[in-house]
Amino acid sequence: MATRNAFYAQSGGVTAVINASAAGVIQTARKYPEKIGKVYAGRNGIIGALREELIDTSLESDETIEALIHTPGGAFGSCRHKLKNFSENREEYERLIEVFRAHDIGYFFYNGGGDSQDTAYKVSQLADRMGYPITCIGVPKTVDNDLPFTDCCPGFGSVAKYVATSTLEASLDIRSMCESSTKVFILEVMGRHAGWIAAAGGLAGQGASEPPHIILFPEVPFNREAFLARVRHCVENYGYCVIVASEGAQYEDGRFLAEAGARDAFGHTQLGGVAPTLANMVKQATGYKYHWAVADYLQRSARHLASATDVEQAWEVGRAAVEMAVNGKQALMPTIVRDQSDPYRWHIGEAPLSEVANQEKKMPIHYITDDGFGITQDCREYLQPLIEGENFPPFEKGLPKVAKLKSQLVEKKLKAAFNI
Amino acid sequence: MATRNAFYAQSGGVTAVINASAAGVIQTARKYPEKIGKVYAGRNGIIGALREELIDTSLESDETIEALIHTPGGAFGSCRHKLKNFSENREEYERLIEVFRAHDIGYFFYNGGGDSQDTAYKVSQLADRMGYPITCIGVPKTVDNDLPFTDCCPGFGSVAKYVATSTLEASLDIRSMCESSTKVFILEVMGRHAGWIAAAGGLAGQGASEPPHIILFPEVPFNREAFLARVRHCVENYGYCVIVASEGAQYEDGRFLAEAGARDAFGHTQLGGVAPTLANMVKQATGYKYHWAVADYLQRSARHLASATDVEQAWEVGRAAVEMAVNGKQALMPTIVRDQSDPYRWHIGEAPLSEVANQEKKMPIHYITDDGFGITQDCREYLQPLIEGENFPPFEKGLPKVAKLKSQLVEKKLKAAFNI
Repeated sequence: MATRNAFYAQSGGVTAVINASAAGVIQTARKYPEKIGKVYAGRNGIIGALREELIDTSLESDETIEALIHTPGGAFGSCRHKLKNFSENREEYERLIEVFRAHDIGYFFYNGGGDSQDTAYKVSQLADRMGYPITCIGVPKTVDNDLPFTDCCPGFGSVAKYVATSTLEASLDIRSMCESSTKVFILEVMGRHAGWIAAAGGLAGQGASEPPHIILFPEVPFNREAFLARVRHCVENYGYCVIVASEGAQYEDGRFLAEAGARDAFGHTQLGGVAPTLANMVKQATGYKYHWAVADYLQRSARHLASATDVEQAWEVGRAAVEMAVNGKQALMPTIVRDQSDPYRWHIGEAPLSEVANQEKKMPIHYITDDGFGITQDCREYLQPLIEGENFPPFEKGLPKVAKLKSQLVEKKLKAAFNI
Repeated sequence: MATRNAFYAQSGGVTAVINASAAGVIQTARKYPEKIGKVYAGRNGIIGALREELIDTSLESDETIEALIHTPGGAFGSCRHKLKNFSENREEYERLIEVFRAHDIGYFFYNGGGDSQDTAYKVSQLADRMGYPITCIGVPKTVDNDLPFTDCCPGFGSVAKYVATSTLEASLDIRSMCESSTKVFILEVMGRHAGWIAAAGGLAGQGASEPPHIILFPEVPFNREAFLARVRHCVENYGYCVIVASEGAQYEDGRFLAEAGARDAFGHTQLGGVAPTLANMVKQATGYKYHWAVADYLQRSARHLASATDVEQAWEVGRAAVEMAVNGKQALMPTIVRDQSDPYRWHIGEAPLSEVANQEKKMPIHYITDDGFGITQDCREYLQPLIEGENFPPFEKGLPKVAKLKSQLVEKKLKAAFNI
């Protein structure tokens, strides 16, 4: 088999460990020079392929690639751009083939969530549909933990560790202050469609009296009265109440709490935030002093607190993707298969892209306690190993050191530009 | 001199390292058994003294006291309760003396910010005014960094490190996404009256093109047009714009941005948040896609990312307070004296409580760039050493280990209860 180049791209919302997957891909590709020539990274994901903006990773030193393992964000740039169907946008596929052909790209590694696996699957069909042979492997990534077939998603374990740790630390703060000051604390976390991240906050404590006292999941319709009753119960019995709220918390009718109608002075709809909405509700109903935090991007970029398990898995799915490709496999995504929870053992499996694409894995309902406010023992057993182990980055002058890439683009070979 | 017991209390908003000061006090007191008997910690600060709720720290093992060094929050409970003047509330002082006398307390260590140093000063006057001899030493603490005489305040360095690290990490995230998604990110940080914490965000980058691109200080009146022009400039020239905003950011007339008039669906004033307010402003004026985060208590409880410099200084002011007391000093507060910035050298000094009380140290105006949106080289030199060094806590099952105290109260000796 002739040596051909590889294309790697990051897609969708980035994570604390997506660059560890990039390192896994590039480091492993460098071990197969007889099969893989250069690894080109798309500048800003698939957009880079369409625009023929290809970062030549062969110009980056081994040290720089190694440093990707402790660098958050998407080092090559990511994007939110979903390829349409062949019939709807044949032009984009033709452009991809044009660029791939110009740069002799025979391998396509696409690092992302559900939408991205769908794109990867479509690209894998280029051979059959448009006569361009290309080996196509998806690399899983998403803090939302909602990809099917894989036991967990690289990126999730680190967010989970961050949210559990932050909940624990902030709870100690509130507990100190509750006698004469703040009694209610609300931490808003990500997870528009699934409560995985909110659930992770539950690892901060055990039992009803330990924080977090209330978790609000998108899966459980929000009931104002039950919520306020629980807040009152916690403050009266434990002195304080810590709440972890998913940004996706919603009413029975599907309205998000974060969009429940606040308006600014000009009458414009106020920007969301389930935390301030809940804080307002608590204040008006109970008068308790409150504080609230919205972790937002901090939670998914907190590489300084990454889970060692997650970092390892992120690197491994990158490695496995390349191994699959050089072994002639096609249209697959490496998965994490759990052998056992305690002690934790796992190995890499594989799933066909055709089945991964556009499926969402929901949180099992038996992971949520009957009252709807907490996580069950089953859920703890599932989550626990994912946050284990620390993998602190090196620090310099008090701050995490991050990879500094040259990010030099390959010279363009095509005359035409492409507007996307 | 006879052996007498000591009273230690935590006061005001807690920090990631206030318990390191507690450890400094207790561990040092244990070295002077001929002078200091037991150290009683006020349960919930000075309230514990008034209620005769004294935690007997002698029942805590050396290991537990050592573990305080890596435990955030206030391990004995804190409070917001400022003693009034003698003339206004003589009853409280009489109660304090009653409790101190009942438990033979001859040393008073009060761990807090400006208001707390004022309380400590008043207690130091009990000997003269009310005939109860007590040695009284303040122990500085505040994330706000606004105590006079001391070069910095224990608690601040760790918040500064957290904010600088979070700004750096989140900026890498935005940079990855800005081509096709989020272009503006706003991180709201603490500091109602002074911009020290917001300034620390500036350490994440150097020069105009590196994030954070805009810092909003309470010291600089907010100018909507100048702000929006800078946001546009950054997005057009760097592709994205990262903003660190102090919760105390305000208009020329003193109105806080966070209180600028948003109302909920019922017409109630919407709870603050300078970050969502700015996000709304950016959206309406520019249409840029934005994200925002509010760090709130997360920033001041993030012991997992404490500055080693800060942890050491927090412990040292506790140690020094006890050394001062056993050496017969009175009505002082240990201070941090900077000998030089690079390499950083410092030593412990002292300041009289009479002068510390109720003074606020503002951020020097030459620490802010002329445009009002950044920090100067002088400011960097001041801040840099305070965030240096890591002091990660031990972890267990993926989470930071924290001290588990018995917190056993001393048997009450007084019959009367005291309502506060």
